[in-house]
Amino acid sequence: MRINNKNYQTIWVKDKDPKTIQIIDQRFLPFEFKTADLKTHKDVFIAIKDMWLRGAPLIGVAGAYGMYLGLLEINSEKNVQKEISKIASYLKSARPTAVNLQFAVDLVTDQIKNKKSLEEKVKTAFNTANKLRNKEIENCQKIGEYGFPIIEKLSKAKKGETVNILTHCNAGWLACIDYGTATAPIYLAHQTGIKLHVWVDETRPRNQGSRLTAFELGQEGIPHTVIADNTGGLLMQKGMVDMVIVGSDRTSANGDVANKIGTYLKALAAHDNNIPFYVALPLSTIDWNIENGVTQIPIEKRDENEVKYVEGWDGKKISQVLVMPENSSALNYGFDITPAKYVTALITEKGVCKATKKELAKLKK
Amino acid sequence: MRINNKNYQTIWVKDKDPKTIQIIDQRFLPFEFKTADLKTHKDVFIAIKDMWLRGAPLIGVAGAYGMYLGLLEINSEKNVQKEISKIASYLKSARPTAVNLQFAVDLVTDQIKNKKSLEEKVKTAFNTANKLRNKEIENCQKIGEYGFPIIEKLSKAKKGETVNILTHCNAGWLACIDYGTATAPIYLAHQTGIKLHVWVDETRPRNQGSRLTAFELGQEGIPHTVIADNTGGLLMQKGMVDMVIVGSDRTSANGDVANKIGTYLKALAAHDNNIPFYVALPLSTIDWNIENGVTQIPIEKRDENEVKYVEGWDGKKISQVLVMPENSSALNYGFDITPAKYVTALITEKGVCKATKKELAKLKK
Repeated sequence: MRINNKNYQTIWVKDKDPKTIQIIDQRFLPFEFKTADLKTHKDVFIAIKDMWLRGAPLIGVAGAYGMYLGLLEINSEKNVQKEISKIASYLKSARPTAVNLQFAVDLVTDQIKNKKSLEEKVKTAFNTANKLRNKEIENCQKIGEYGFPIIEKLSKAKKGETVNILTHCNAGWLACIDYGTATAPIYLAHQTGIKLHVWVDETRPRNQGSRLTAFELGQEGIPHTVIADNTGGLLMQKGMVDMVIVGSDRTSANGDVANKIGTYLKALAAHDNNIPFYVALPLSTIDWNIENGVTQIPIEKRDENEVKYVEGWDGKKISQVLVMPENSSALNYGFDITPAKYVTALITEKGVCKATKKELAKLKK
Repeated sequence: MRINNKNYQTIWVKDKDPKTIQIIDQRFLPFEFKTADLKTHKDVFIAIKDMWLRGAPLIGVAGAYGMYLGLLEINSEKNVQKEISKIASYLKSARPTAVNLQFAVDLVTDQIKNKKSLEEKVKTAFNTANKLRNKEIENCQKIGEYGFPIIEKLSKAKKGETVNILTHCNAGWLACIDYGTATAPIYLAHQTGIKLHVWVDETRPRNQGSRLTAFELGQEGIPHTVIADNTGGLLMQKGMVDMVIVGSDRTSANGDVANKIGTYLKALAAHDNNIPFYVALPLSTIDWNIENGVTQIPIEKRDENEVKYVEGWDGKKISQVLVMPENSSALNYGFDITPAKYVTALITEKGVCKATKKELAKLKK
């Protein structure tokens, strides 16, 4: 998608230097646009852990490239398997809730295990990461195509009046490689001329909504308005929201959705106001081993300073301000669980389905 | 209550200078403690409008003193009635959603209307404001006494284990004159030795929770933890919240509660997790003319910059950082409406009652 009218993706192999992976360093957005070079698996670990990049699909692809870079660092054929295991565990520990990261790292591990030489393993890891990257792009395109008719139908029901869509956090192309998950149907609808407007939850504590989603929508010329996370309920009460669409970091086999903290509250409000609540996700986000998301999905606890301090642009640079008493403490959970019963439907690369174990299982095939 | 171990109230008549009203200027909390002198009704208007002070009961009392200061400014017996009307309308316009402001200004207007001389009117306005101030303190004390058994019962049910209470915004003593509404039962329970802990919603966009509630709880030595507004739902899912208690800016005759934006979302989550949701309020907050809060209570829209910028302590002074693209716009509603059906009970100075028209009407008598 576009930044300053130039096309970008979030992660790519450096031109003429395939031993370097380049990413958009999202920490500076929307105030500054920077890219970063990743040359080792530790670079990838840091980029994931410190959120230079974030978003389930992107984290997965980065993890796959992390495996590739890690293999490049192994300089002896001895203990290769042990080294690989170490690299894999290390990379997975960067974001424990993100099932895509586990998935992608395991995928590479699996693909390389029968390759005999280190060289072959490196080559296979590289190809696997590239394929995964392309697959994620394709998945987002398909999610866009499957989600599009939902917006189109709302637009027709409103006789072409603006369709108001609320989203939480950033499940846009900056969370993926391109197009996004929750945003893919929005971009497609916008391109076909459907009138729409997006309510963007700022998404404290890290403000991925106000910083990233607002940025990417703005760059694509899509009308949008940032709101405090507290506001969505009122807008729904006032009839100012036609649908909600969010992403997912991990979805259980029964359709419970672990997504950015606060998603659950919007699902409750949508339910209370008879507003459809959609979750857009690649199937790789589904954890088939988990039957009950509410009790079984582990919730990442992050640094309390993300709550204590707010980061923003002070006019000259990015800086932080303290927003509470220095001596008070804060608690910072990254995700919550939206029970399947509050999800109108899941939009996947294989089609739209009800958030039930039975319907999801059909897509698994 | 205490600030730096000294007792304060939020508004008082200056010692030896009854023509000056003093307040805690809450704009600088928790980073700096300042008081301000109000000498004219315009000073009061600005203090209310720009939120040097806030909170339904405190706004009301400030409005009453505003009438008193306005009367002091009238220097001729001619057109007194017209001047009074002008002052009253002006003061009321400072915060349109706050029914206490209308109530207090009307109360003073009513009390002075049959007083013949300007001098008598001034004296009556002063006495009325003082009485209202004392009445609000007394109301908060009573709310504390009526709310206390609710916490006590939870504590007993948990066999003395910590009772976890979630609150939104600041319905503490800084929103009142002393004790607070939502906090009054908490302070009382703490004083009697009940083990409790308060989850403090930061309450974007103005962060009254993280800045004021955390501050006042800290000053009283009450264990508390600040959370992003998005977090409460997860904590309830995880069984980490035993009750919710909030204040109200305006309550309809049928028990719908207009309170700080985001309150409704917490009520939905409490309902979904079978957690009791209480609203503490003086009866002056009830607008008996409104039968349906959801459709009839007007919602104040505030400056979008409160969403675009976050204010905090930069290490040396209070400053603001931009948290979204400069060119994106934001929408800033101040309140939402929690339908009565999600309110377990209302805690008032006349007792605890169900949030129904019938039960509320009994307290009116």
